[in-house]
Parts: sequence; structure tokens; C-alpha cells
Amino acid sequence: MRTANELAEFLGATILGNGNLPVSGVANPDAARAEDLIYVDSPRHLERAAGSEALCVLVPAGMELAGKTTLEVKSPKFAFAKAAAWLLPRPALRAEIHPTAIVANSARLSAGIRIGPYVVIEDEAEIGHGSELDAFCFIGRGAKVGRDCRLHPRVTLYAGATIKDRVELHSGVVIGADGFGYVFGEGRHVKFPQVGRVEVGDDVEIGCNSCVDRGSLDATEIAAGVKIDNLVQIAHNVKIGENSVVAAQVGISGSTSIGDSVMIGGQVGIADHCTVENGAILGAQAGIPTGKTIRGGDVVWGTPARPIERFKEQYGWISRLPDLASRIRKLEDDRKR
Amino acid sequence: MRTANELAEFLGATILGNGNLPVSGVANPDAARAEDLIYVDSPRHLERAAGSEALCVLVPAGMELAGKTTLEVKSPKFAFAKAAAWLLPRPALRAEIHPTAIVANSARLSAGIRIGPYVVIEDEAEIGHGSELDAFCFIGRGAKVGRDCRLHPRVTLYAGATIKDRVELHSGVVIGADGFGYVFGEGRHVKFPQVGRVEVGDDVEIGCNSCVDRGSLDATEIAAGVKIDNLVQIAHNVKIGENSVVAAQVGISGSTSIGDSVMIGGQVGIADHCTVENGAILGAQAGIPTGKTIRGGDVVWGTPARPIERFKEQYGWISRLPDLASRIRKLEDDRKR
Amino acid sequence: MRTANELAEFLGATILGNGNLPVSGVANPDAARAEDLIYVDSPRHLERAAGSEALCVLVPAGMELAGKTTLEVKSPKFAFAKAAAWLLPRPALRAEIHPTAIVANSARLSAGIRIGPYVVIEDEAEIGHGSELDAFCFIGRGAKVGRDCRLHPRVTLYAGATIKDRVELHSGVVIGADGFGYVFGEGRHVKFPQVGRVEVGDDVEIGCNSCVDRGSLDATEIAAGVKIDNLVQIAHNVKIGENSVVAAQVGISGSTSIGDSVMIGGQVGIADHCTVENGAILGAQAGIPTGKTIRGGDVVWGTPARPIERFKEQYGWISRLPDLASRIRKLEDDRKR
Repeated sequence: MRTANELAEFLGATILGNGNLPVSGVANPDAARAEDLIYVDSPRHLERAAGSEALCVLVPAGMELAGKTTLEVKSPKFAFAKAAAWLLPRPALRAEIHPTAIVANSARLSAGIRIGPYVVIEDEAEIGHGSELDAFCFIGRGAKVGRDCRLHPRVTLYAGATIKDRVELHSGVVIGADGFGYVFGEGRHVKFPQVGRVEVGDDVEIGCNSCVDRGSLDATEIAAGVKIDNLVQIAHNVKIGENSVVAAQVGISGSTSIGDSVMIGGQVGIADHCTVENGAILGAQAGIPTGKTIRGGDVVWGTPARPIERFKEQYGWISRLPDLASRIRKLEDDRKR
Repeated sequence: MRTANELAEFLGATILGNGNLPVSGVANPDAARAEDLIYVDSPRHLERAAGSEALCVLVPAGMELAGKTTLEVKSPKFAFAKAAAWLLPRPALRAEIHPTAIVANSARLSAGIRIGPYVVIEDEAEIGHGSELDAFCFIGRGAKVGRDCRLHPRVTLYAGATIKDRVELHSGVVIGADGFGYVFGEGRHVKFPQVGRVEVGDDVEIGCNSCVDRGSLDATEIAAGVKIDNLVQIAHNVKIGENSVVAAQVGISGSTSIGDSVMIGGQVGIADHCTVENGAILGAQAGIPTGKTIRGGDVVWGTPARPIERFKEQYGWISRLPDLASRIRKLEDDRKR
Repeated sequence: MRTANELAEFLGATILGNGNLPVSGVANPDAARAEDLIYVDSPRHLERAAGSEALCVLVPAGMELAGKTTLEVKSPKFAFAKAAAWLLPRPALRAEIHPTAIVANSARLSAGIRIGPYVVIEDEAEIGHGSELDAFCFIGRGAKVGRDCRLHPRVTLYAGATIKDRVELHSGVVIGADGFGYVFGEGRHVKFPQVGRVEVGDDVEIGCNSCVDRGSLDATEIAAGVKIDNLVQIAHNVKIGENSVVAAQVGISGSTSIGDSVMIGGQVGIADHCTVENGAILGAQAGIPTGKTIRGGDVVWGTPARPIERFKEQYGWISRLPDLASRIRKLEDDRKR
């Protein structure tokens, strides 16, 4: 059990109230019990927090809340996320190789790992210290899992796929399948060689049933800190820069390069050989045609994607078309008179 | 073997013709054999039914079909669906816990269930009477499967996920993974707590490789009778009301609320914190921006979605733009003269 | 180890230079080592090839490259794809039924197959000669796998699904689940019978986590040579003609018919009962409304999809709307004077 004082110390917060208050969980103000931590980030939500059963509240500088113990922090929501991880830590790993796991003799397994039931690990694969592989994970020949990774049930790593440290892969993720490339000739599609690498960087999280293909001749590379949602498609040779965020059902086509800290909304489609520079924001369902560049910091929407202000302006003009047409008609009528 | 009379009784239909006719299956008119049931719902398809080898036909009131035994019903297609389930019932469950299934001691398994090969059921999970779990299903700690459920091969229920009675989950479905929410600070994305519940109601069916995330602090809730197609993404805290229908590849973002009997077309994207009221219809590929409300019974299309009549009207105006432009030019030329 | 001469013979190429040069792999010019094969298809890339460490280069007729051994071919990229398959053949299959595979007594397994760990094969299923099924594959009752197929880990074939020869299915593919069809009545959605067949033709490749549903009463049919990318949805009763190519995250709704050699871009959505004729090209994210026909050889884009030239023209007109409006205003002002 943690106390408000300990939490304040962990967060570097200024505490006001009862420092011995026990804090054991996190919740929404409405659902919170006395020992849950809650947060407020704007005066608009003050009343909701005041009415909560929670006794300990993260607040921005200068906000007072009668009857509560408050912890003043710069960003209450960020502090809440950090506090949650600290109050509700992942249970300590119970090192075990489940007897039903099938591990090739030449696989290199570090100590201190958990390999769940019915996991298959093929020749020369490597699993780093502190990693957990849940049931039905498949680690192909020569694939590498770094330290402190978490693979939920039935993740597939094709032969040679590499994931680095503290990577979390959700159920159904597939890393390293052949990219989608063919050359048509002699009456059939012949596969263009799909023999490149795929590497997923430190602290990456990838959502359920998402797919990251291996490179064709080059490499597919997901940099450190990237967060990818469910049902996302990352094609061969794609690069995604550090800390970029990719929402659900996005598709990124071959050889496209995404910069750092890019935000990609749900169902966005990016064609092949595009460049999305650092810090760009792509609105949900936007479509980027082949070979286009989205400039750093631009916010775009629509298909083909354009700056969101222009999208909205054009959209406004379309709404005014009936009016324009009637004005033209009026001018024509006047002329006839 | 059933007879036409028995079928008429089951459906509450008025029979005309040979009541002793055997009826053993269902088919399209073109592919039907003598003992298959077929249906006609409009005079347009009368000829096709007349030419079929099938001898027993579901028809709307007042429709005659020489040489066939007809069963008059209010809605032939609905009666056909009911008849199919009655003529071709799911084979009786053969209760069995496959010897390769790994079931935690603290899991509570009802009698009369079938647990397929290589199923993994973790601590304190519950499986209700009459449920079937096919190969490679994973039921996480404390997850609950109700009565008479059908989980096809390799369904994943994360810890704590709850599905109620008569739920059918197709191969690759994942229920209860972490939602996608982060707070950026100190140079990295920290996960916002994803510790809420997820509950799937009675009689829900979810298609292959679809994903329903758990709530962040609240709950994700799919109400009774909802039907969800393949490759659908349901984010944290989403609510879907009774009997709503969600076509393939739809994405519903966090904290969005869908009413009852809503129809969502394929590839629709709904951003976060939207409200879709009862009975609304969202055309395929429509996009609903953050925070929008779609009114009850509205039919919308496009991105950003608007009423379909307005969408079509605006689309029509766009087609007339070259004409408008040439009329403006003409007016300008006239003025110069 | 192959030589340049052997490769020239295999490809029917005209060789210029050292025929005894060893050739052992394929690569991009930048990454190539001396023994890798590279290709050039246009003079633009000549310099890059000239600077490569690779010594053996596929070139189009008439292109010279000092210091390299060149193999003149009609289509260097196609020859490169063929050469890659020949230089880097799939390792010879090591016939084996893994002892953990669960194979029903009534299943018919040909000789010369590899069945991986934890595969489940149900009653009356068939596996043809030379096929490989990786870990966690599930072959339902009566499903058929042809000759020389490759099923990557955790592919699901529902009961009765049929795949023919040389089919490659990537991890997470599901073939033959129930289609998505209901009839609403008596306050609930009753499933329309989903009892039809599904057949995947020779030489088809299907990407990770893609889904092909069985027919409702008819059949779902993927013809020979079709290539389907990741996360694609193929609904009940869909037909796809020979050698068509379907990019990632495409959705094809029920009873739609796709011709031969059709190219479908990423995230395209095709509603039900559409016809896409031979050789049509559907641009990424295009949407085809219910019942539409796309003519043979047409190139379309947008939602609703229209010929790409018209799409671009209309898009251009939208950009000119502010100008048109100011011209109308000017005409109005002039008139007032």
C-alpha cells in the first residue's frame, strides 16, 4: 500500500492535505473509491472531482479542492498515467518454461523469462532476459526477442524478425511476413524477392492483429517509442520514426518513410514511396497518393490529403454551390431582360 | 427428415400442396435438389423458382406456384432463415475436455461443455454450460464465457473479459486487449491506464480477426443481439446498443456511443467521443469526426459524414461545375461587348 | 553456387563478360556484395548500378556497364524476380508429422508433407503431397489442402474449405468462416444460412490476418494466380478472377464479382452485388456503391468511384471555386453600377 506522501515524492508533486492517506488504485471520479487516485486537468471538471469518493487528487498548480488531499503537478493527466503504472505494476514475472513449449536446441533463451504453454521457438531464435511469451506464440528461425518484452497469446514472428527491448505485442500480431510485391510476366505474377529485414525498436507497442512485413531487399524499421494500434498494416521497407503514433486500421504502403513524432489517425492510407516529415498530423481516413511528401508539422485531411484548413475551406465552398448557381441564373435572367 | 407439414407448423405458415413432402435442406433455386427448401420474395423471382428442382417454396401471401408445395408466410426471407436453422441444426455438443487442454485448477468449468485441443484456460476463468471452445482458444485469468457460446479456433479473451450467453466468436477474435491511449511527457508516450472492463452481451456474433478492447477506466460494452463482421476495431469505452449491425473493417474510436439498431456500413470510421443515435444508418466508408452526433434515424454518407441526400446533392453540384464555369465566362464575355 | 553462365541460360539472357562469375544472392545495388545479382531497368539507375559492389547485373537490351558482367533480358525486374526464386529456393521440405499434431483418423494425409507442432486436422480433411502446415494450423472437418501448399503458423480453415495447389497462406488467415448475413424479424437478427462453399485456386497467395468467408448458399471463389495482401476481407459469394491483385485492407462485400487481372488498391471498399470487369484498376481507398459495374480496363478513384480523369478534373474544379465565386461577385457589382 502506498501513501499520498510516497506518491508525491515519486511524482515530484507538491502535496496539500493528509500525507498518510493510503492510495491503492486509479479510477474515474464517478467510479472511484476512497483509496483511488483521480485527476483533474481543468476547472470544468472540478465539481466532478469534488463529488468523488476519492480522497487523493492530482491537480494543476493553484487548484484547490476542499476536503481532498491534492498533489500539484505540471500535467495531471501525465502524472496520472505515471502514477497508475507505479501503483499497479505488472506482476513480477514468474520465470518458467512451460513443459509444453517446444524450444529448438539451438535457440538461445536467457534466464528469467516466462515461456507460456504451447509456445514454439525455432532454431537459433533468441529470447532476452525478462521477456514473457504467452500461449501459442511462434518465434521463427533466427528471430530475436529483446529484454523485458511482452508477447501476448499467439503472436507470430517469422524467421529472422527482430524486436528489441521492452516491446509489447498484442494477440494476433504478425511480424516479418513476406511483403506484397510481384512482377507480372509469362502470364503470371512472380514474387519479387521478399528477403529483407524487419526490426521493431525499443518500447514499441503494437495492437492486436496488426502486421509488419519484412523488407523486400531493404529493411522495414519501426523506431523506438512508436505506438501502433489494432489491425494496422505496415508494408515492406517502411520506416517509422521515433515516438510516432499510428491509430487503428491504418495502412502504410511499401517504401514509405514516416518521420518522428508523426500522428496518424484511424484508417489513414498512405501509398508507396511517400515521405511524412517529423511532427505531421494525418487526420482520420486521409489518403496520401504515391510518392507525395507531407511537410513537417503539417496537418492534413481528405483524399488526396491536403492541409486541413484548405480541406475545410473547399468543403465550405461545395456547400455554397447552390447559392453560386442561383446567382449565376439571376445574372443570366437580368441580361435577357 | 422433416416434412412440409412440420415445417409449416414450425413457421406458422399456410400450406398449399403436398404436406408429406420431405424437406431436408436449403438452397438457391438454381442449385436446389427436390428436397431443398427455397424462397421467393418478389414476383420478379417467380420464374426462377418455378424452374427450380425444389418442390417446397416459401412464398409471400397470395403468390401461387404451379407444381410446387407452397408455404405462405409474411416474410419469406425471414422464414427461410428460421427454417434453415431448424432444418440444419448445429450438431449436438459432444461434451469433452480434450486431454491437451490446459485448464487452471481454479477455473470453473460447467458440465456439458466442449473444450477443444490445445485450449488454455487460466486461473479463475469461468465457462458456462453448453459452450464450445475450439482449438487454440485462450481464456485469460478471470475471464468469463457464458452459456451456449461458440468460440471458433484461436479466439483470445484477455484477463477479465466477459462474454455472456449464446455468443459466437469467430477465429482470431481478440476481446479485452489494452485500449490505445497514451500521454506524452518526459520525451516518451506513457500508457494511460487501460484497466477497465469489457463485456459482450447475449446473442452477439463477432467476425474473424475483429478486436474489442477493454475500457481504460470505464467499460467497453457490446449489448445483446449486436452483429459484428470481420476485421472490425472497437476501441476502449465504446458502447454499442442492442441489435446494431457493424459491417467489415469498421473502426469505432474511444468513448463513442452507438445506439440500438444502428446499421454501420463497411469501412466506416467513427472518431472518438461521437454519439450515433438509435436507428441511424452510416453508409460504407463514411467518416464521423470527433465528438459529432448522428441523429436517430438519419442516413449519412461521406467524410465528414452528412445526410445522404445532401451528399448526393453536393456531389451532383460538383458534376455541374464545368457548366457553371462556362456560364460565368459567357456572362463575362457578354459584358465586355 | 551458381555461375553467371548458368543464370543466363536459366533466364534465356545474352551474357556479356565473365560467365564463370559466381552468383549466390540478390540485393539492392547499394547493399550488394560481389556475388549478389542486381538489376537496372532504366538509364536513370545506371550510375547506382555502376557504383555497386555487385559484379553481375541484369540489364535491358543495349545497356552497357563497364566492369560488370551483364545479362541482357527483355524485362530486368521480371528476370530478377525469377532469378531470386532460382538462386534462393525454398529449402527442401523435410517430411514429418510432428508428434504433437492431432490428426483425425479419417483425415487423408498424402506422403511427403510436413505437419508442424500443435497442428489440428479434423475428420475427413485432406492434405496433398508436398504441402507444409506450420504450427497451430487448424484444418476443419472435410477441408482440403492441395499439393505443395504452404500454410504459415496459425492459419484456420473452417470445415469444408478448399484450397488447391501451390497456395500460400500467411499467418492468421481464416478461410471459410460464416458470411455476414442476417434477416431481422421477431425482434432479433436471425442468421441467413451460411452454408455455401469456398474455394481458393492454384497459386493464390493470401496475406496475414486476411479473411475469406464461405458462400451463403452459393460459393466464394478465388481463381488461380490471385494475390491478396494483409488484412483483406472477402465476403460470402464473392468471385475473383484469375491473376487479380488485391492490396492490403481491401473489403469486398457479398456477391460481388471481380474479373481477371483486376488491380485493387489498398483500403478500397466494394459494396455488394458489384461487377468489376477484367483489367479494371481501382485506386486506393476508392469506394464502389452497391450494384455498380466498373467497365473493363477503366481506372477509377474516389467514393463513389468514377474514372480517374473525371475525379481529377472535378477535384481541379473544386480548387477553382473561390475564383469562380469572385468572378460572380464582380459580375454582380458591375450590374449594380
